[in-house]
Amino acid sequence: MKSLEKVAIVGVGLIGGSIGLALRERGLAKEIAGFGRRASTLERAKQLGAITSAVATLTEAVAGADFVVVCTPVETIVPQILEIAAVPNARPLITDAGSTKSSIVAQLEQNLSGHARFVGSHPLAGSERGGIEHARVDLFQGRVVVVTPTSRTDSEDVAAITDFWIALGARVISMPPDAHDRTVATTSHAPHVVASALAAATDPTALPLTAGGWRDSTRIAGGDPELWQQILLDNRTNVLQSLSRFETSLSRFRSALEAGDSAALRELLQEGKTTRDALGS
Amino acid sequence: MKSLEKVAIVGVGLIGGSIGLALRERGLAKEIAGFGRRASTLERAKQLGAITSAVATLTEAVAGADFVVVCTPVETIVPQILEIAAVPNARPLITDAGSTKSSIVAQLEQNLSGHARFVGSHPLAGSERGGIEHARVDLFQGRVVVVTPTSRTDSEDVAAITDFWIALGARVISMPPDAHDRTVATTSHAPHVVASALAAATDPTALPLTAGGWRDSTRIAGGDPELWQQILLDNRTNVLQSLSRFETSLSRFRSALEAGDSAALRELLQEGKTTRDALGS
Repeated sequence: MKSLEKVAIVGVGLIGGSIGLALRERGLAKEIAGFGRRASTLERAKQLGAITSAVATLTEAVAGADFVVVCTPVETIVPQILEIAAVPNARPLITDAGSTKSSIVAQLEQNLSGHARFVGSHPLAGSERGGIEHARVDLFQGRVVVVTPTSRTDSEDVAAITDFWIALGARVISMPPDAHDRTVATTSHAPHVVASALAAATDPTALPLTAGGWRDSTRIAGGDPELWQQILLDNRTNVLQSLSRFETSLSRFRSALEAGDSAALRELLQEGKTTRDALGS
Repeated sequence: MKSLEKVAIVGVGLIGGSIGLALRERGLAKEIAGFGRRASTLERAKQLGAITSAVATLTEAVAGADFVVVCTPVETIVPQILEIAAVPNARPLITDAGSTKSSIVAQLEQNLSGHARFVGSHPLAGSERGGIEHARVDLFQGRVVVVTPTSRTDSEDVAAITDFWIALGARVISMPPDAHDRTVATTSHAPHVVASALAAATDPTALPLTAGGWRDSTRIAGGDPELWQQILLDNRTNVLQSLSRFETSLSRFRSALEAGDSAALRELLQEGKTTRDALGS
């Protein structure tokens, strides 16, 4: 990707801040304008070198920008992109970093004017530790970013967004928004519910007897409840279907335990191990 | 703890091998005899410096030993300790490293002669990567070891076992066997079932879209199915009770999702976060 004149980052937390840090380190943008709710966060992002300027309005952020990346919570993405697209004389290529894609892409296709240029993205690089303080220059290195074009998306825009993420070190997978949402319901959203339910079901007095297993199994339960309720509700049909598959799997364990059936139990454990081992460590 | 003349390690895998490495590095035992099913494993343990001699019989391992640590699968521990206790002219202090304690301690109290000296132990230092190749000299450093004396256990023996684990770098918590089994059902055994069910419920074609969340949530599902079916069945009453609490917690998530109730969802996520945050990172 050739160097960009100006990139605007809307929402400068873990993801937005890491994009800025990576753009600067790689010399990929001359100007990086940061916009967000809190002036203190923007000031901190500037101190850390994630943005070159902290701006007070979306209009100012977008003016003259080649690229705009919207890294705000799922519920906020659509209204902000509609506002960005309405800025006069601005025609940036817009993407987002939301963990759900179907409703965001559908709402934008319905409401954006024909001139606006948008491609949905989801960098699989979140963490239970959000915020600008945890931003890292290498957050996207070797990580997957899903881009979700539709039949209405301009193929040059898809290529440009793909190049953008690859320039930050990521691997890009392209798939339709609905396939994305079905898949991440299984690989991310339902596991979040399971981890959170597991943590909530643990009596705090038992914590001294936890070790690496409980620690890792529940790590993501430390994520931001507000961000996650938005993700889970936005993708709830798929999440409920993924949870049903999990509940079926769990009920087979329960039956084997109740029956004291060692062979069945060994087989169920082997099934889980086979899938887990397919991923690697 | 003053240096021991001879320690016997029965079962030289991750736990047994790490005990040997730590004893040697700290100069805590002159001789470390290793006994196990496979000659090749014992030979490897000797090469790695985890034992000083590989012996072919339990009798040979135990002869002249001050301490015997039995680090074999849960089902094997009781018959092996009964065999060790029956070796003529041997009066070692015996402990084990099993992940369950009630049935092991009860069976031994019922069947060991009055002269035998046994205190149950459970080092919370297991891993999905077992075997001598993963043994580490610092495996117990800062980790918790639970010792489970009963009213019939000699207090000097408890003190000696406690000193033994502390000398290896561990922190020791003492509690009755039944309290141990109830607690680790919640902190280790039920989470293992949940992680395994979560992995098994994941379509392998979705794996390219996994990130740190799924990876960590399912890590322990990579553990040995044979070892884990023994642990889960031995502690199944407690595991089923822990799973019931988890299922209740999960069903509250399901209800909130079905109702599209963002406030309830946020509250449930906050409950999980509060417990998880109480542990730290």
